[in-house]
Amino acid sequence: MNAVEQSLASAEKGAPGMAPAPVTPALPAQAGAEGNGFDRWLLRRLQSHLGSPPVELAVRNGARVGPPGASPVARVTFASRATLLSVIADPAMRFGDAYSNGDVTIEGSLIELLEAVYHAGRATGKRDSLLRRAASTLRRPHFNTLTGSRDNIHHHYDIGNEFYELWLGSTMAYTCAYYPTPEATLDEAQVAKMDHVCRKLLLKPGESVVEAGCGWGMLAMHMARRYGVRVRAFNISHEQIAWARERAAREGLAGRVEYVEDDYRSISGHYDAFVSVGMLEHVGVRNYPTLGGIAQRVLGARGRGLIHSIGRNHPAPLQPWIEKRIFPGAYPPSLAQMARIFEPWDLSILDVENLRLHYAQTLRHWLALFENASDRVRAMFDEKFVRMWRLYLAGSVAAFTTGTLQLFQVVFAPGVSNDIPWTRAHLYTP
Amino acid sequence: MNAVEQSLASAEKGAPGMAPAPVTPALPAQAGAEGNGFDRWLLRRLQSHLGSPPVELAVRNGARVGPPGASPVARVTFASRATLLSVIADPAMRFGDAYSNGDVTIEGSLIELLEAVYHAGRATGKRDSLLRRAASTLRRPHFNTLTGSRDNIHHHYDIGNEFYELWLGSTMAYTCAYYPTPEATLDEAQVAKMDHVCRKLLLKPGESVVEAGCGWGMLAMHMARRYGVRVRAFNISHEQIAWARERAAREGLAGRVEYVEDDYRSISGHYDAFVSVGMLEHVGVRNYPTLGGIAQRVLGARGRGLIHSIGRNHPAPLQPWIEKRIFPGAYPPSLAQMARIFEPWDLSILDVENLRLHYAQTLRHWLALFENASDRVRAMFDEKFVRMWRLYLAGSVAAFTTGTLQLFQVVFAPGVSNDIPWTRAHLYTP
Repeated sequence: MNAVEQSLASAEKGAPGMAPAPVTPALPAQAGAEGNGFDRWLLRRLQSHLGSPPVELAVRNGARVGPPGASPVARVTFASRATLLSVIADPAMRFGDAYSNGDVTIEGSLIELLEAVYHAGRATGKRDSLLRRAASTLRRPHFNTLTGSRDNIHHHYDIGNEFYELWLGSTMAYTCAYYPTPEATLDEAQVAKMDHVCRKLLLKPGESVVEAGCGWGMLAMHMARRYGVRVRAFNISHEQIAWARERAAREGLAGRVEYVEDDYRSISGHYDAFVSVGMLEHVGVRNYPTLGGIAQRVLGARGRGLIHSIGRNHPAPLQPWIEKRIFPGAYPPSLAQMARIFEPWDLSILDVENLRLHYAQTLRHWLALFENASDRVRAMFDEKFVRMWRLYLAGSVAAFTTGTLQLFQVVFAPGVSNDIPWTRAHLYTP
Repeated sequence: MNAVEQSLASAEKGAPGMAPAPVTPALPAQAGAEGNGFDRWLLRRLQSHLGSPPVELAVRNGARVGPPGASPVARVTFASRATLLSVIADPAMRFGDAYSNGDVTIEGSLIELLEAVYHAGRATGKRDSLLRRAASTLRRPHFNTLTGSRDNIHHHYDIGNEFYELWLGSTMAYTCAYYPTPEATLDEAQVAKMDHVCRKLLLKPGESVVEAGCGWGMLAMHMARRYGVRVRAFNISHEQIAWARERAAREGLAGRVEYVEDDYRSISGHYDAFVSVGMLEHVGVRNYPTLGGIAQRVLGARGRGLIHSIGRNHPAPLQPWIEKRIFPGAYPPSLAQMARIFEPWDLSILDVENLRLHYAQTLRHWLALFENASDRVRAMFDEKFVRMWRLYLAGSVAAFTTGTLQLFQVVFAPGVSNDIPWTRAHLYTP
């Protein structure tokens, strides 16, 4: 058990401020046995639905079902039969809600529990049918139209810069870091990621860069400071843009980095490089050709581009609870879906790097910082918010370690340009 | 003008054994002027159809049309109006045939001519419609069924090992090399390519590898000799398998490398690594899921795979003359099409490297060796064969330098496996 998991387990076992779950009064022996029998049947049904992961399932003060032939990595306790029934009716959505409300509690490692569930689900072969997958791609519940995108982005990114400052580290980069070795710290890895991106883009002093979706703007500042380029960076999160402008002014970079509070669809002009780190998840597959057209017009017959995004091995919707509660409108594409950005515009894909294990490591670091700051988060919001975000961060670790999610960093260039790196050796020679 | 281009130009200007083209008798002045006027109109029509590349077009002893506002990189001379009319009727197919027959001659650099034509064609925006592209994907003229594949492969690869030995270099690798620097020799770059592939596959002594489409078997021998692995290598070219077996026996590797004269669809068993370098071009898009299923079954829940293939920025048929005369049944896929290998089987794409400029360099080296050996090639076959292969090799250089073709090297692993490289730094530290 590592530090994160220990902090999780201890948080579960009685973190301050956690609402005590209602205790079911003891039933008379016979009724209890009957009740236990039905609950046990329900638990077994859920266990089977999940593909029999090595997890113990229980109803508080009642029935318990252990995993068949394996020692459990964690115990999940439902506060009541009502909670259990609710979760069984729609596990993908209601498990997260019940956990957030405190109606589901976890003993043991939350990450290992979620990893076990992801692995078991995959092993049962319960893969979405092609039809269902196609349907889910079309039926996006939160369309990324111009106003739709603003609403979706506001939901997640405008909940308070102070909150994000508690656990993102000093770089305020809310995207996958790059760990030259697994021992690197979060801040080291985020700086290494920025350098990895800049090197992939072959930035040279005096060049111009446009950034689509700049977060708190630290990559743009890093590019200007370390690589001597001018950057125009777009973002529709009001809070993030305000933070970025203030920081750039304080660091004397305001003349070289311009933050534009506008949609990527408003990008125009000509630049030497196009970069987008962690925005594509919010673009929507139907808008990919538009995004590629913008990159193509911006670069013309030369220049380089990089798009960094969470992805999938095959098209599948985002986990529904995450999509509803955390990231409305978000969708991680397969690499073939990402290709729809490039193919209509004769853009050449030069390099794809899958960094999924780096995202798992980034998320472990975020989660540890988040747990250390959980009292302050609770004071800012409430216990439900703490549990919701803990589940989201732990679930994301599990999604990347189990290969349920990928992280694709794609370098591209106009098809007619031979101004491209000869090899990738320059990325690995300091 | 480099050595290759010089040798090309001199070959054109009267290489030994080249059949002299028939000379059109001089026409009377008036008829000549009329004839010239019509020929000039025809040449202009062809020039416009090609997107006005910087090329001079001429009919032998007759009309000439220079490029508008540019100095020509080469002159194309049609032996007669009949040849010109024939080429105009179907340039993509008949230019190659007319060149092979000697009815079209080139002064200047053949490669620069073809590059100019590729660039101009792209600039006119004469991109295939989606419908036409889809249709061309479905209507493959040479289906890669089990017997179809054998016929197609026999056509190209079984024309004589002695022929290929003249110009492939000592490694007998008929696939894109990897040049650590552009100054590397062909043999150095082919060995570097084999090491690049082996490092990407993280081969360890004692492991087992299956190879789909092994050519003359030198990669398999390199793996066994330098990385201590056992290799089972499949190929349906009888000539290549015979050569590979003889060589492996001579080098004392017969116990560690087994060559199987059979289709990749017959691969079974379990291996630590799956590799296929330069076979995918002959598989056909409709068979990609089958290929991926084989890789998935071979690797199980662990191991690594690599597929190396010529590709495209977007789906488009192979140049028709190349498909008909040189590579029946061949098709270079887009990366999204390649993804059909991996997506149905939850295989993770870990790394994609586009090496198209390395293939241009490889082809320049092959072409130089081919020209040096052209007398021997002519003695083995005939002048038409020499011209056909010269056009194919020079046209391939131009396709890669103009971004018309790509070279994708894709590393993949089972989606559930975390036994994958942490970074790619090991590829660049000797």
